[in-house]
Amino acid sequence: MSTQNIRLGLIGAGRMGSFHGLTAARHIPGASLAAIADPTPGQAARLAAELGVAKVYTDPQQLLDDPDIDGVLIAAPARSHAELVISAARAGKGIFCEKPMAITLDEADRAIAAAADARVPLQVGFNRRFAKSFRTAHLDVVAGRIGTPQLLRSLTRDPALNNPAASPQWVIFLETLIHDFDTLRYLNPGAEAVQVYVMADALIAPEYKSKGFLDTAVVTIRFDNGAIATAEANFQAVYGYDVRGEVFGSAGMLSMGSVTESDLVRYLAQGIQADTLRLDTDLLRDAYIAELNHFVDCLRSGAKPLASGEDARAALAIARACIESFETGKAVAVQGAQR
Amino acid sequence: MSTQNIRLGLIGAGRMGSFHGLTAARHIPGASLAAIADPTPGQAARLAAELGVAKVYTDPQQLLDDPDIDGVLIAAPARSHAELVISAARAGKGIFCEKPMAITLDEADRAIAAAADARVPLQVGFNRRFAKSFRTAHLDVVAGRIGTPQLLRSLTRDPALNNPAASPQWVIFLETLIHDFDTLRYLNPGAEAVQVYVMADALIAPEYKSKGFLDTAVVTIRFDNGAIATAEANFQAVYGYDVRGEVFGSAGMLSMGSVTESDLVRYLAQGIQADTLRLDTDLLRDAYIAELNHFVDCLRSGAKPLASGEDARAALAIARACIESFETGKAVAVQGAQR
Amino acid sequence: MSTQNIRLGLIGAGRMGSFHGLTAARHIPGASLAAIADPTPGQAARLAAELGVAKVYTDPQQLLDDPDIDGVLIAAPARSHAELVISAARAGKGIFCEKPMAITLDEADRAIAAAADARVPLQVGFNRRFAKSFRTAHLDVVAGRIGTPQLLRSLTRDPALNNPAASPQWVIFLETLIHDFDTLRYLNPGAEAVQVYVMADALIAPEYKSKGFLDTAVVTIRFDNGAIATAEANFQAVYGYDVRGEVFGSAGMLSMGSVTESDLVRYLAQGIQADTLRLDTDLLRDAYIAELNHFVDCLRSGAKPLASGEDARAALAIARACIESFETGKAVAVQGAQR
Amino acid sequence: MSTQNIRLGLIGAGRMGSFHGLTAARHIPGASLAAIADPTPGQAARLAAELGVAKVYTDPQQLLDDPDIDGVLIAAPARSHAELVISAARAGKGIFCEKPMAITLDEADRAIAAAADARVPLQVGFNRRFAKSFRTAHLDVVAGRIGTPQLLRSLTRDPALNNPAASPQWVIFLETLIHDFDTLRYLNPGAEAVQVYVMADALIAPEYKSKGFLDTAVVTIRFDNGAIATAEANFQAVYGYDVRGEVFGSAGMLSMGSVTESDLVRYLAQGIQADTLRLDTDLLRDAYIAELNHFVDCLRSGAKPLASGEDARAALAIARACIESFETGKAVAVQGAQR
Repeated sequence: MSTQNIRLGLIGAGRMGSFHGLTAARHIPGASLAAIADPTPGQAARLAAELGVAKVYTDPQQLLDDPDIDGVLIAAPARSHAELVISAARAGKGIFCEKPMAITLDEADRAIAAAADARVPLQVGFNRRFAKSFRTAHLDVVAGRIGTPQLLRSLTRDPALNNPAASPQWVIFLETLIHDFDTLRYLNPGAEAVQVYVMADALIAPEYKSKGFLDTAVVTIRFDNGAIATAEANFQAVYGYDVRGEVFGSAGMLSMGSVTESDLVRYLAQGIQADTLRLDTDLLRDAYIAELNHFVDCLRSGAKPLASGEDARAALAIARACIESFETGKAVAVQGAQR
Repeated sequence: MSTQNIRLGLIGAGRMGSFHGLTAARHIPGASLAAIADPTPGQAARLAAELGVAKVYTDPQQLLDDPDIDGVLIAAPARSHAELVISAARAGKGIFCEKPMAITLDEADRAIAAAADARVPLQVGFNRRFAKSFRTAHLDVVAGRIGTPQLLRSLTRDPALNNPAASPQWVIFLETLIHDFDTLRYLNPGAEAVQVYVMADALIAPEYKSKGFLDTAVVTIRFDNGAIATAEANFQAVYGYDVRGEVFGSAGMLSMGSVTESDLVRYLAQGIQADTLRLDTDLLRDAYIAELNHFVDCLRSGAKPLASGEDARAALAIARACIESFETGKAVAVQGAQR
Repeated sequence: MSTQNIRLGLIGAGRMGSFHGLTAARHIPGASLAAIADPTPGQAARLAAELGVAKVYTDPQQLLDDPDIDGVLIAAPARSHAELVISAARAGKGIFCEKPMAITLDEADRAIAAAADARVPLQVGFNRRFAKSFRTAHLDVVAGRIGTPQLLRSLTRDPALNNPAASPQWVIFLETLIHDFDTLRYLNPGAEAVQVYVMADALIAPEYKSKGFLDTAVVTIRFDNGAIATAEANFQAVYGYDVRGEVFGSAGMLSMGSVTESDLVRYLAQGIQADTLRLDTDLLRDAYIAELNHFVDCLRSGAKPLASGEDARAALAIARACIESFETGKAVAVQGAQR
Repeated sequence: MSTQNIRLGLIGAGRMGSFHGLTAARHIPGASLAAIADPTPGQAARLAAELGVAKVYTDPQQLLDDPDIDGVLIAAPARSHAELVISAARAGKGIFCEKPMAITLDEADRAIAAAADARVPLQVGFNRRFAKSFRTAHLDVVAGRIGTPQLLRSLTRDPALNNPAASPQWVIFLETLIHDFDTLRYLNPGAEAVQVYVMADALIAPEYKSKGFLDTAVVTIRFDNGAIATAEANFQAVYGYDVRGEVFGSAGMLSMGSVTESDLVRYLAQGIQADTLRLDTDLLRDAYIAELNHFVDCLRSGAKPLASGEDARAALAIARACIESFETGKAVAVQGAQR
């Protein structure tokens, strides 16, 4: 499938699925969106009509069985990701899976093995690796531009708490901070997390704490190269979608992230004012496009994606240790970090 | 042509034409690039191959005669724009024309009349009207957020002087500052320029001054609402592509423009450092996409484009007055500004 | 001592003592520096000559016995602070003491009691409370402008590691992070730290770790209003003196701190560049002046200083808990935090 | 007068005089304010009481005759500056004179000659030469860091129009833009202005235009090294006191100026917000202190001040050409620019 058009299939037509579908259909040269699968009645059909996609399925397996599909974009609920990855691998499809790729380390290992056995590319939706500033920072660190990393910070703040009642348990670790865990690994290349300690709480919606729903968390992480990192999340940043990173090393510091909507600045009687962004799909739009371009490149070349199943597994190991740290109140070793 | 796909034809496959062609082919939902015309042997064919476009012409008129084309993108050399607009109008095509739409006011009037007679949309490539910060600033001014404009500034600085020997006369006014003249009108909505005064020189390449090639210019413009504006251009900003605007009014100020490549900031022993952008097509990429989306919307709806032939005519009137001011050393009234 | 000139005595003529002496002698209206004491031979005399101060002592007690002194500035080594505070209180002098006011909680309690018994003002050198941005942030939080604090951050990074061999044990907690612990309390007004967890290391000078000298630390702190804070320090920020704060609440975020030397920005072929500051006395110069002005105001009015002995005690309680957390590897309750 | 304390006398106890008096009395090591003269009854006495100054005069000549005064600070109304400079020179006093030093070129020449004849230092209050960012920019240009200057900009915007009825004619050129004219010379070292063109108006208070009071002006200036500069002023910037500079050269650009009050940034539901400064004495406070320190240094060393009578004359020559340009509507040669 080297020179011709790459035909993508989308599994999951919810918010992120629709966004990935739009991106695949419109903004990826050399690729097209050929099919959409979603079990919710009408969901796939609605999106397919909007994007001019011919094939609609309710069962993802039908899409996986479709011989005209080269690669799949998995944007179904997180709990189903690992099984879909395994099925897609068995069907011989290249796989782009939204984060988290898995909920347990065992699942993660099976997903990685399935893709390896089938020799299909497996990419995970760690979008910040494809954001210009984070990517350049990573390359700067690799090039030794700030010496050895000693202190790192990554944070994610959502602009508004969204339906805690329907949120899966530990969502703050497994679905939000998983981005930051990966970012910290990306900014501290070659190092692995060895220990975590968590302080977390339900400060925005305390009534959900007893149901295992946390909305505020600070995680401290020690890496095997000595670097100490902080990952931080909160679900109600009234000012916008806030994603930032910082890496401080023996020869300098890099900082990334801005919540401003554009380079317009207003100077008014009340002071200086600027607008902010409120959607991850606006803040990281170029990164979302870049990651799908990368996926299509990998489908074509067979190269290992930049955000791999192993990366997903390593971030998940940190998230699982966080859950244990929260439950025990103690610092916890990260499983499988030793290489 | 309301619901179906809009088929665009590109005239001119040089640097800007290739960029517009790529944008049209890849990033405009509901539109496709159907044909390319360029008299340079092989030029259109090369781009067509790259973008997967079926039809290739050497004579633009062949493209204009093609009944399968709904709208044309004119990116030929500036001196041919007006005649191509007139021909396209006569052929009943919707028209997107790169700036400047014309070189003389008479040409401009004829081009506007041709599009009006043919009842086809005529849009001019004033890309800053579609840049987020400039567009929001315009809307802020319209909404009265900074009161009455009193002082304005717009500047364009190219990163590197490009072949002055091959440049047409007065290119700094007719092809570069024409953007700033339009921007100033856009940021001072409803007002018209009444007088200009120019100080300009060949400071980068003095040997070309006698051939009418200027590389540095400052233009002061008085508008009929009393506002005083400065437009400034230079062809060798070693730090990058610099496009900025400022509008100061009785109730505040707006500033627009940033040359930074991303939100990455480096803190090093030598101080703070950030990277810059060097291509207009990088700096204004989103604006280039937005203006073509707007063009396709106008083709579909029949609405008058936001950057119209009349806007092109008004900016050209300022540019022509600048040439006269430079030649006479005096302040010059802008022709046809009185409405 | 309400209307006439306030006469200050300086104890300690080292780096910080010299700086406070200069500030007291030059920049505090209504006050003068009347005497300097330092046991190092010649040290007090040298500074006195430079600043035009008449009285020189080698024994601090001589200065405390001088009836012409209204208030003292204690800038001796940290380990002697508490005893000097107690002696000064007994001598009836108003007291400005550099941080840390004490090394143990018992010392701190005795110092506070001595000042209370003597009814003399006791101010501690928490300079960030007097920095414009931190002060305004504090007032914003008090005014409810960002709602309830949920996440906080304070960091201190020195530009260059300075003689670790001569540094007292736990200096990173007791002398550096003590600033951040106070800042976090200041930005979360009315709340107290209840628990800390430390990850710290000797990354810059690993050879000193066994001697109890740490150069890199991240502290996570839980407050009794639910807020979770991070304090961070490092002793070798090659780019400059870095002091920053951030407070995120239910209704917004405030960020403070900038390492830039001035508002000059350079745009060069290598990108954008700006200079940074390398001395705390440059970065916080206005805050140093403001805190001494405040001290003189308190001497005059008898008001309780904004940075009190109790504030010093509370910050010290956090620092002591940090030492225990580092030694045990566990989260530790902050002693005396319950009110 | 080399080693002992420098005794300064202040002439003029209005707004700026009071500020300079406070600075001289409090913040200049090695100097003291010894006398104040002001013809307004009670004005000098009031300030003297506030600052603890012993000698009060109503006639400036009395102060000039006082043998205990080493140098004078002239902060009387602008129209009296030149005659006061001449009298002070004849009295053998070192002279710091607020801008403008003179209103006519003839006055300026006589003031310069008087100081030269008396061999006394003559410094003019061009404060931006002492602002950190502008000073560093000047040194950068001298060092060739941005190559040859080609485009410059300097602007001054006052936050609120102040009593136009009482303002002297052409105040915008003679008292406001005179700063910018000097700044442009400072940023283009060694070059002189050769031609100016003015567009100016009364946009804030049109009713005063007929009385020669302009509140908005844009001046374009050509320098003898080819550089083209813009100076811009407005008397009602509702957002604060705005002083900025920009110098663009063949090898880069420098920008200076920020209206922010501190490094506090607020992130709120309405977007990002920061406070601004509204007083020149806040915005340029450090520069005001630095210029008096420089004056005292010059009094002591006999060195020629950095902002000299010749600098004042050169800026005035630009201002006078501006008045002629405004009155004639033409570009005007700057008198005496040829060296």
